[in-house]
Amino acid sequence: MNGPREVRQAIRAGRHRRNTAGLARGHVQGNVCILPREYAADFRAFCEANPKPCPLLAMSAPGDPRLPGLGEDLDIRTDVPAYRIFRNGKQEGDVTDLRDLWREDLVTFVLGCSFSFEEALMQAGLRLRYVEQGTNVPMYRTSVDTVPAGRFRGKLVVSMRPFKPADAIRAIEITSRYPRVHGSPIHVGFPEMIGIEDLDRPWAGDPTEVRADELPLFWACGITPQSVVLEARPSLCITHSPGHMLVTDLTNASLAEA
Amino acid sequence: MNGPREVRQAIRAGRHRRNTAGLARGHVQGNVCILPREYAADFRAFCEANPKPCPLLAMSAPGDPRLPGLGEDLDIRTDVPAYRIFRNGKQEGDVTDLRDLWREDLVTFVLGCSFSFEEALMQAGLRLRYVEQGTNVPMYRTSVDTVPAGRFRGKLVVSMRPFKPADAIRAIEITSRYPRVHGSPIHVGFPEMIGIEDLDRPWAGDPTEVRADELPLFWACGITPQSVVLEARPSLCITHSPGHMLVTDLTNASLAEA
Repeated sequence: MNGPREVRQAIRAGRHRRNTAGLARGHVQGNVCILPREYAADFRAFCEANPKPCPLLAMSAPGDPRLPGLGEDLDIRTDVPAYRIFRNGKQEGDVTDLRDLWREDLVTFVLGCSFSFEEALMQAGLRLRYVEQGTNVPMYRTSVDTVPAGRFRGKLVVSMRPFKPADAIRAIEITSRYPRVHGSPIHVGFPEMIGIEDLDRPWAGDPTEVRADELPLFWACGITPQSVVLEARPSLCITHSPGHMLVTDLTNASLAEA
Repeated sequence: MNGPREVRQAIRAGRHRRNTAGLARGHVQGNVCILPREYAADFRAFCEANPKPCPLLAMSAPGDPRLPGLGEDLDIRTDVPAYRIFRNGKQEGDVTDLRDLWREDLVTFVLGCSFSFEEALMQAGLRLRYVEQGTNVPMYRTSVDTVPAGRFRGKLVVSMRPFKPADAIRAIEITSRYPRVHGSPIHVGFPEMIGIEDLDRPWAGDPTEVRADELPLFWACGITPQSVVLEARPSLCITHSPGHMLVTDLTNASLAEA
């Protein structure tokens, strides 16, 4: 089960139900957001106005469960291990298959995720403390406004990774080459300048130590669109369940700029 | 006198004797280091081992005053407004012409200079405080060793520019695209980690304020090779006089990576 197509086939057949961390190495995993057609134009505009938190990789035609640009065989109704259902902004529960819920007006959005740039960081020899400690990356709601579009507006959510200064510079250089998966950080050094009062109390994920000779780097986080969409209370919103991503045929390397 | 060739002609004819700041905009200005042949292989190896402080743009054949890769008409004996002569590591004085001093064993090295990346920073809308205040960039001798080569060894010298965090990230992104003119910074944030005890007391240049919401960024500085060469006390060393650079036909844009 090494290739992305094999991973999707295993998920589709019900043989893989867990999260997708480490699967189909080298391939892009995507955040999923499915909305009724009436919200689609606004959400597309929101993604285009906020490319760092919402790097749009693909958008489907209404009612079409396929995303051939991400995988010829891909069917969004069956190829994610766990989906989370929200109605009117409220979480309703998780399901493992969307075939019963599918409607002719549903539009699928797939957004880039930090797994891609983290692979590039680790290949360059940088160490990610939260990975080494087996925890989740700490995420914070900032005081920074996203650019509003239609009914969507809200604060930017960021993830934080600490590095020593020379590694911080390398991390900025490397991630700036991946604009389709969040790109370079939005902040370095002074959490309070972006409305983060206490690094030890993340909004989501687990706290990560920042040592005296390290700088905290903050990247725009793919949780931002979900947070913004739910505040608008759409009649229906379907996302992937945290960590249970859509595995695509795109390679991380193909997202790197020259 | 807008083009690089016109600037060199004016210097050659004695019509321009001042520094070269702001001349032939968009074109690369180079640091010059001329050494007897016996030191040339070591110095070339030193540059290649230390590309950030010593980004080698061109090297001449022994005794040949031309550098056709930097300008078809270029003659290193006449095309720099002021030269500084060092014998056995001691400064002897400045001259405006090398024709009387020229020897068949002299080898010319031209190294990239931060003017090129500073132009790119300013074009991106970033502000350089030392430029706006009409002072010289502050330079510091660090505790960081360069990679030794032959008889050349010594500490890295850096220049410092302060930026707010988002601009610091931009500055790192932009300068990382210019590896042939010092590239990205070597440090950000903690001067003491690289042996700088007091930012207010630079080794050369003028102090520049770092405000509470700013990070100091440190770039490898083109003074490093001069400092290292003079410590080796070569029988003869000729450099440009500070600020009086070699104006070349290369464009800054041509040095940017895609």
